[in-house]
Amino acid sequence: MAVGPGVLPDLPAIAGIRVGTVSAGIRKPGRRDLVVFELAEGAATAAVFTRNQFCAAPVQVARRHLAAAAPRYLVINTGNANAGTGARGVEDALAVCGELARLTGVTTEQVLPFSTGVIGEPLPVGVILPALPGALQQLAADGWTAAASGIMTTDTRPKGACRRVQLDGVSVQVSGISKGAGMIRPDMATMLAYVATDARVEPALLQSLLTQAAERSFNRITIDGDTSTNDACVLVATGSADMPCISDAADARYAVLAEAVMAVCVELAQAIVRDGEGATKFVSVDVSGGRDGAECLRVAYTIAESPLVKTALFASDPNWGRLLAAIGRAGLDDLDVERVRVLINDTLIAEGGCRAPGYREEQGVAAMAPEDIVIRVDLGRGSARDCVWTTDLSHDYVSINADYRS
Amino acid sequence: MAVGPGVLPDLPAIAGIRVGTVSAGIRKPGRRDLVVFELAEGAATAAVFTRNQFCAAPVQVARRHLAAAAPRYLVINTGNANAGTGARGVEDALAVCGELARLTGVTTEQVLPFSTGVIGEPLPVGVILPALPGALQQLAADGWTAAASGIMTTDTRPKGACRRVQLDGVSVQVSGISKGAGMIRPDMATMLAYVATDARVEPALLQSLLTQAAERSFNRITIDGDTSTNDACVLVATGSADMPCISDAADARYAVLAEAVMAVCVELAQAIVRDGEGATKFVSVDVSGGRDGAECLRVAYTIAESPLVKTALFASDPNWGRLLAAIGRAGLDDLDVERVRVLINDTLIAEGGCRAPGYREEQGVAAMAPEDIVIRVDLGRGSARDCVWTTDLSHDYVSINADYRS
Repeated sequence: MAVGPGVLPDLPAIAGIRVGTVSAGIRKPGRRDLVVFELAEGAATAAVFTRNQFCAAPVQVARRHLAAAAPRYLVINTGNANAGTGARGVEDALAVCGELARLTGVTTEQVLPFSTGVIGEPLPVGVILPALPGALQQLAADGWTAAASGIMTTDTRPKGACRRVQLDGVSVQVSGISKGAGMIRPDMATMLAYVATDARVEPALLQSLLTQAAERSFNRITIDGDTSTNDACVLVATGSADMPCISDAADARYAVLAEAVMAVCVELAQAIVRDGEGATKFVSVDVSGGRDGAECLRVAYTIAESPLVKTALFASDPNWGRLLAAIGRAGLDDLDVERVRVLINDTLIAEGGCRAPGYREEQGVAAMAPEDIVIRVDLGRGSARDCVWTTDLSHDYVSINADYRS
Repeated sequence: MAVGPGVLPDLPAIAGIRVGTVSAGIRKPGRRDLVVFELAEGAATAAVFTRNQFCAAPVQVARRHLAAAAPRYLVINTGNANAGTGARGVEDALAVCGELARLTGVTTEQVLPFSTGVIGEPLPVGVILPALPGALQQLAADGWTAAASGIMTTDTRPKGACRRVQLDGVSVQVSGISKGAGMIRPDMATMLAYVATDARVEPALLQSLLTQAAERSFNRITIDGDTSTNDACVLVATGSADMPCISDAADARYAVLAEAVMAVCVELAQAIVRDGEGATKFVSVDVSGGRDGAECLRVAYTIAESPLVKTALFASDPNWGRLLAAIGRAGLDDLDVERVRVLINDTLIAEGGCRAPGYREEQGVAAMAPEDIVIRVDLGRGSARDCVWTTDLSHDYVSINADYRS
């Protein structure tokens, strides 16, 4: 199940990047499961990774390689996460990087590996290595659409987003793809996103841009509160556009580019939620009136991850008691419950610690009917605001996660 | 659904306490829904309440009354939580206390009110007040069993536990009842427990005993991570036993009594989990080898509340990847994943960051088959240990909570 149509847009090429996708036969024969990105020499690459301490072997290797060299290739396999595989997992990830480096004449450290799929099984290096030459043969500037499918695991559809912006008269493109259907798919370890632009950006500034963009997009989504062992998001700036390098956040062009990257990341992140396991609703939890952003987020996540709120959303039940109870246990100091207001979409359902005067159940039922729901909470004690996106908790979520390995 | 037989034991009377239960017709005609406890003059009463800031009106009133006077009566209704009812809810709770006080010749502040049931609807004072005389007529020393049913909401069975201990040659009794089927039943706001003994205990020491006992029992269970607006636990020491008052925790009798109260509380708390919404498993998450208890608890709760771990438990799937991923995101500083060991019952399934050498899937499947499961995690970095109890996440949980209001 998935929320909304979720049509993959045409993903424009990024000058300086070629993408190749093939079927290596890692888990299912005939399924596209191996993607190679080739980055132009001089491209700047930034990345953010999972904070899970049981991070997968490719995450460990990618972090190390990124610190040591400017990447020329990204290699992504689905079907196997190479997570929970210990020292052997690291050797396997290095073997894939080494072979791709040998075939292309770069160093092993210039290759970043990514894996997604089943946890705890050895990476089938024997089927991946022979498929690498084919992936290199497939390299093409317009390879993004095939790659969007090639990185899927149990996603029901490919995910992509793009923006074109003018930077001081120079037109640059931002394109991105993502995959993920639960925040963690513990046998299918989970979220990956690749975003690229032909803009020219100084590497440290690019990393800062990605960190901020991921914080406001991929770090604002939750399907089940679980964090994958394999999450990674990469932002490449090839510098192929004919423009002076952006090396300062105060540069007016930076704000324009950052907004475009942010928009692509938010769209890719929301696409993951819309394709969430068993999702029948796309829910924005928008908390305002907080003393600081941290407490807004704490309330938003408590609501978004409450199984009782999520089952009420699945039932399209305007169950304001569950919302108040979630707010009340979010751990805010001296919260004055009399000042809290709760709206579903634009219907005021609770205030003053109880049902809003004049609120009628029919209004709530009507507000809960659409696929897209906004839960608005005003804490009434400050001016901070933050928002997270989530889904409901359905029978299909239980089926998908209880039946997965069988 | 519920785990295990869950037979209600014979609950011995406590000298100094009488209990009366009637049907007031609060929500369902003919259902026992109103319970009155009468406490002997001189009884010491301790209580702990929900930490949810949207606490219900009866919780607010009970807290205030307990601070002002020694309680002589407890009055408990099911069918309506009197939560999310604002200022009117407080007036309604006071009206019930006031009427019971008038009928019995005590002060309003000597009555503690408790409510459980639907949130957000006004307390039907009009049907409760006329039923109070009948409840008083029913008062009897052996009324505990009827009360165990009378405080149920969507519980599938009554819950009780008891112990008899010798305090320096004096035989004293501890009896208790509890209700609850989700940590929060947000339309059915949730956990209540009443424990009593005829021992004589100084009130401040009794409160300290209850706080510790609740911390190690009711505060160690989680069904869905939600915290009710109405949770309350009361411990009464009537002092009817012929013994000198226990006024010092160093008193040897205190340790014996505390152990009995603790055992009753743990049994009552576990009974709530076993009757958890949609539960098919009773799961102990036992985390050892931590630097302190807090980090053991953090890991235990992260596992116990992970929807992915819970769905794997429902599927009886020995999914060690989900367990490692939950441990890895629990937020422990510099966790050395190489030192972490995970066992299901007594089967070692993961160590050194991956599947344990020699572990075979059949062993895990066998370990996951019973209704009672112990997940053991050894963090390998200290000597602290703690344990929480939880259930799985089943289709019935979703059905119960998605269909409840319809």
